[in-house]
Amino acid sequence: MRIALGIEYDGTAFYGWQSQPHGKTVQDELERALREFAQTPLQTVVAGRTDTGVHGLGQVVHFDTELDRTPFSWVRGTNAFLPKTVAVQWAQPMPETFHARFSAFERTYYYVLYVHPVRSPMLTGRAGWIHAPLDVDAMRAAAACLIGEHDFSAFRSSECQAKTPVKHLHQIDVRQQGDFIHFRFRANAFLHHMVRNLMGCLVAVGRGRHPASWLADVLASRNRSNAAPTFMPDGLYLAQVSYPEAFAVPAAHAGSVPWSTVWTQPEP
Amino acid sequence: MRIALGIEYDGTAFYGWQSQPHGKTVQDELERALREFAQTPLQTVVAGRTDTGVHGLGQVVHFDTELDRTPFSWVRGTNAFLPKTVAVQWAQPMPETFHARFSAFERTYYYVLYVHPVRSPMLTGRAGWIHAPLDVDAMRAAAACLIGEHDFSAFRSSECQAKTPVKHLHQIDVRQQGDFIHFRFRANAFLHHMVRNLMGCLVAVGRGRHPASWLADVLASRNRSNAAPTFMPDGLYLAQVSYPEAFAVPAAHAGSVPWSTVWTQPEP
Repeated sequence: MRIALGIEYDGTAFYGWQSQPHGKTVQDELERALREFAQTPLQTVVAGRTDTGVHGLGQVVHFDTELDRTPFSWVRGTNAFLPKTVAVQWAQPMPETFHARFSAFERTYYYVLYVHPVRSPMLTGRAGWIHAPLDVDAMRAAAACLIGEHDFSAFRSSECQAKTPVKHLHQIDVRQQGDFIHFRFRANAFLHHMVRNLMGCLVAVGRGRHPASWLADVLASRNRSNAAPTFMPDGLYLAQVSYPEAFAVPAAHAGSVPWSTVWTQPEP
Repeated sequence: MRIALGIEYDGTAFYGWQSQPHGKTVQDELERALREFAQTPLQTVVAGRTDTGVHGLGQVVHFDTELDRTPFSWVRGTNAFLPKTVAVQWAQPMPETFHARFSAFERTYYYVLYVHPVRSPMLTGRAGWIHAPLDVDAMRAAAACLIGEHDFSAFRSSECQAKTPVKHLHQIDVRQQGDFIHFRFRANAFLHHMVRNLMGCLVAVGRGRHPASWLADVLASRNRSNAAPTFMPDGLYLAQVSYPEAFAVPAAHAGSVPWSTVWTQPEP
């Protein structure tokens, strides 16, 4: 039987999603807890391999098992063996045609940026911070240059394992609310460090270091050395993975970080 | 010269405010950083001694110094020596008549409670969690029994150092929003563990274990053993300390935790 799980995690203390020999990754914790609960090893396939320090709100995995458990017993049983920084939010039996990675047609990331002269301890690890004001309209104009199917090599980490640098960026939304600027990135898939590299460039435009059209030039160059430095991971969240409706995958739970609700409210 | 500082901190990793020999308190960190910046020891007086795991949004301290620095240089200079979990938000010269503790006429605490069948990793340390629904109207009715000047011995920790158990509880607000129930407590001052003990009792009423009027009986008994167990510190924030207007103390910065804005919006 194929089971899908929705996973939420605070990425601050993890070396990203993907299993490593030292065991300090979210996948290592999840598979350790599944093994404890199921009393047998279970290998998971993940929708999006998040990087060090990146949080997961709507991460999705699947695995195959002979065990017959109710969905909520997978949730409760696995959570009993997980640290406080990781929790299964839902479990659902799936047809064999479902694949956490290959069935997904869109990933949504949030970036939360705190704009204030003084840093905020409650936001450490949870929001990027910049002390000087940013030009939101310029950032929006720059973001618009990136929409569509492109070769995103200019925003790709040298460690990226993706087969192709061509991705389809569906949408970038930028919204200011109080002392925060919220970014939402939607694409069929993302390259390694792609959102953080895009954020570095958007912030450079927002600070007036480059005109908005500079982002089109960087994109066209396909050269990483033309882009801005990789921005801090603190405010980055894998918010949602989208699958064809037929799979009826539960939506990511919106309540757990308050900025989820930014995107469910109409623009003020 | 007397200087007041506004302090924000993530209390998760600290043994509360008050200095201890092991040095793992917010006061220890702050005075260490002030000494580094000022190159001389500076003793601080605090408005509210928060407990282990309790966060500070609008904590206020004062100290006396011969040094002549601009207000923002106290902010920036001290923050350079503070860990990421503590930051000075503002600094302001004050008349000798100002006293961070004795001039304050009201303290405001928030308690944030997450009500959901599954725990949320992003809320660990930041919100209390209860998996079963609560009767908000019953909790409001119970809270109303407590308003006014009373002997709060029934909600006082045995370690409390306050001179008198008589405090004036000005207001308790309870507001439901999504999967959260937000509590706001305002009093001239609080006893040790008082908000957490009140929370334990309010949750007991919310779960239907006692009628709302039970809280009046517990209060009248002045006996700690009649109250519910002390509730978890995770969702507790010292939000604001209020002083006479003449001192022009800056308001606590509202942006740093998203639930601050719950109380600035009209009730839906």
